Amino acid sequence: MTAALLDALRAIVGAPQVLTDGDLSAWEVDWRKRYRGKALAVVRPASTAEVAAVVRACAAHGASIVPQGGNTGLVGGAVPDASGTQVVLSLQRLNRIREIDAANLTMTVEAGCVLQGVQEAAAAQGLLFPLSLAAEGSCTIGGNLATNAGGTQVLRYGNARELCLGLEVVTPNGEVWDGLSGLRKDNTGYDLRDLYIGSEGTLGIITAAVLKLHPQPAAQVTALAAVPTLEQAVGLLQLAQAKLGAGLTGFEVMGAFALELVAKHFPQLRQPLPPSPWTVLLEQSDTESAEHARGLFDAMLEAALERGLITDAVVAESLEQSRSLWHLRESIPLAQAEEGLNIKHDISVPVSRIPAFVASTDAQIAQRFPGARLVNFGHLGDGNLHYNVQAPEGVGAAAFLREHEAAVNALVYDAVLAHGGSISAEHGIGALKRDELPRRKSPVALQLMRAIKRALDPANRMNPGRVIAP
Amino acid sequence: MTAALLDALRAIVGAPQVLTDGDLSAWEVDWRKRYRGKALAVVRPASTAEVAAVVRACAAHGASIVPQGGNTGLVGGAVPDASGTQVVLSLQRLNRIREIDAANLTMTVEAGCVLQGVQEAAAAQGLLFPLSLAAEGSCTIGGNLATNAGGTQVLRYGNARELCLGLEVVTPNGEVWDGLSGLRKDNTGYDLRDLYIGSEGTLGIITAAVLKLHPQPAAQVTALAAVPTLEQAVGLLQLAQAKLGAGLTGFEVMGAFALELVAKHFPQLRQPLPPSPWTVLLEQSDTESAEHARGLFDAMLEAALERGLITDAVVAESLEQSRSLWHLRESIPLAQAEEGLNIKHDISVPVSRIPAFVASTDAQIAQRFPGARLVNFGHLGDGNLHYNVQAPEGVGAAAFLREHEAAVNALVYDAVLAHGGSISAEHGIGALKRDELPRRKSPVALQLMRAIKRALDPANRMNPGRVIAP
Repeated sequence: MTAALLDALRAIVGAPQVLTDGDLSAWEVDWRKRYRGKALAVVRPASTAEVAAVVRACAAHGASIVPQGGNTGLVGGAVPDASGTQVVLSLQRLNRIREIDAANLTMTVEAGCVLQGVQEAAAAQGLLFPLSLAAEGSCTIGGNLATNAGGTQVLRYGNARELCLGLEVVTPNGEVWDGLSGLRKDNTGYDLRDLYIGSEGTLGIITAAVLKLHPQPAAQVTALAAVPTLEQAVGLLQLAQAKLGAGLTGFEVMGAFALELVAKHFPQLRQPLPPSPWTVLLEQSDTESAEHARGLFDAMLEAALERGLITDAVVAESLEQSRSLWHLRESIPLAQAEEGLNIKHDISVPVSRIPAFVASTDAQIAQRFPGARLVNFGHLGDGNLHYNVQAPEGVGAAAFLREHEAAVNALVYDAVLAHGGSISAEHGIGALKRDELPRRKSPVALQLMRAIKRALDPANRMNPGRVIAP
Repeated sequence: MTAALLDALRAIVGAPQVLTDGDLSAWEVDWRKRYRGKALAVVRPASTAEVAAVVRACAAHGASIVPQGGNTGLVGGAVPDASGTQVVLSLQRLNRIREIDAANLTMTVEAGCVLQGVQEAAAAQGLLFPLSLAAEGSCTIGGNLATNAGGTQVLRYGNARELCLGLEVVTPNGEVWDGLSGLRKDNTGYDLRDLYIGSEGTLGIITAAVLKLHPQPAAQVTALAAVPTLEQAVGLLQLAQAKLGAGLTGFEVMGAFALELVAKHFPQLRQPLPPSPWTVLLEQSDTESAEHARGLFDAMLEAALERGLITDAVVAESLEQSRSLWHLRESIPLAQAEEGLNIKHDISVPVSRIPAFVASTDAQIAQRFPGARLVNFGHLGDGNLHYNVQAPEGVGAAAFLREHEAAVNALVYDAVLAHGGSISAEHGIGALKRDELPRRKSPVALQLMRAIKRALDPANRMNPGRVIAP
């Protein structure tokens, strides 16, 4: 049975592209090294037709499929289980940029294109593909779409979902849906595109996409502002949105302890503002010039000072300064890792409820886990916080996690739900949160999801056991 | 059976809200008066719980349901068939604005809220709800979402889909899915929201929604430009997008004959530019001031003149002038109606293919239907044209339609498909295009749509016969 399937796969993609021996950990172990699976085979098709043929062969032999892009996901959604019966279908060889249509502001790319390559191809035409996230050097656009990735430009440009106009998908029975429309308006039936986006490979395999491009801004300028409270940070966001409109492309918040860890582990990084309970990084993209952007920043920050929303601020004087402010923000996860393991959360609540959520959750954490330290930072403009909990000073991180991770998660997720939020803002469900989901999501929604899964993948062969339990 | 159902409905919503006698044409006849149905009853629930109870009662008695908002749809999707067995479920009494959350830039509204009321409620808080279309004085937000309405601000703000963060839906078995999240990031499973948006009431009934608001721009300024060819119009669009970025909120094109009809039937409207093969209306929304917007317009239009993209242009000097330019554009459908019946199309192609599509389709029309006149105008920035065909001068419009409508439609739709376009850009499928869809859409997509319909509405009781054939 297995031998017959492997023969069929070899006949489709060629023997060298069916990997069964040697070290397959690059495909079998996830990015965070929390999931270590065993694949029946890793299959590397080079075209949509080959993907479809692989899916049909697996269906004929009753094998289930785990689609995989850059394998940078954070929820264990793209590695096989330990059974040794699942076929990993790697999309990495589908890596052509099929077309760039500058007048339509679109580009058509295959699923295995690395995000950074997509950004660069757009930039070479003087255009912007705004999706941007830490793993951009190795994650693939297919994975970005399958998980509806977020990142740092969502405030202005939306999630991966909002940056996609059409898809090509191989269905669970190995047919190809060509939905590669570059249309901004198309109301001809159900929105299959958005159903596949974010479905984490459980309904079919995204093989190509039409992406939405934007004009390149003439300049990007960042500023840093010291803010006494999160209420004031939300007030600053409202002011910045009113004054800068779509020019405001980034609004990141960083808690004092997060920046303290950066100072401790990366003392060479200059922090231009004195410590403050909260520091906000603002980014402005301007169609005119850096000078124009600075002028708008100055006026807006002056108004913010007058209204008592901020206590101090600095506007980057050069591209280099802008980059070094972003570098501070990007160094938080690294500083955190240097400090030791912590309990990570990728949560969102309505922006207006961020202050209340943080105040009440901080207080509960302090009471239940005395001394626990909060590394709190994230995309405030999207209501998305990485609300991470670090062991108390002097307590071993591993022991703290072993003992308290489940209880900390329960506390945080209860608080998120109480504030109308989501337990997965931008990372997805995968295997990691699959069993948490039924406790945190509306039973009616789960029932609708199960009905859709059964309808489109009745044999449960596409990434089974991810997102929803069989 | 019928009597028992009517009793059950009266028990739920009260006898006065179950209409069975008298003139029900307001609910039974569509906006264009192309579809005249007969309802078993028109039921007017006042709350989500009542909607759910009505759905359960209909299910128990085997009756099908036609959800209806403002009954302004253009594809016959919201009126009952002629059988006298369908229940029209009017959402008009669900018309409360439940909440406006300025800091989260969201508002939560019930499905029966009239679009203009939603716009006004946002404006009263200094915020913008940008969805805008001709029927805004009577269409409802539930209908806008069920049909994924488009309109004049899509270029910057997207369709109804992009303006919605969450939904409340009554499912076909009468359960309530509370998906009223005001979250900008939520990756916890399949995108049910977007599946319901645009499903035209065939999968369930939208009862409320969380809408995305934007800051009000400080000023809106319009300009008019004369353009020799559509190639140059697309070039002007690219230039305007590069120079104005997100400030460009409208880009409408008007053919010479369309403006000629306006001049003929509304001679009191001043047309500030001399006749040109194409005239473009540009709208800019500015976060600073009208002066700033005019300065950007002047610089951009000067560059367009230098590059030979335009032959003439005028920038509105006042809000009143801006409005009068929009008024010209809005008068085209009215002038067209004055001129007589015509064959309407709501099509889209990639923006880059508009010139080729129009050139080849115009030529085919001229050859097959000598003398037929083209009223061609629309949302060029979205690739969406209202490509309408009017009888030759002196030929009776009714006779022309009777004789040629089917052949004209076939010609236009073939051309649309050949250019990778859509036969319904912003109006939906409803009853009007249901039988056309299988000829124009991928069989794989249709199969996926049918599987979803069967999974979520196995008894086919939600707006049966619309969008996809049973």
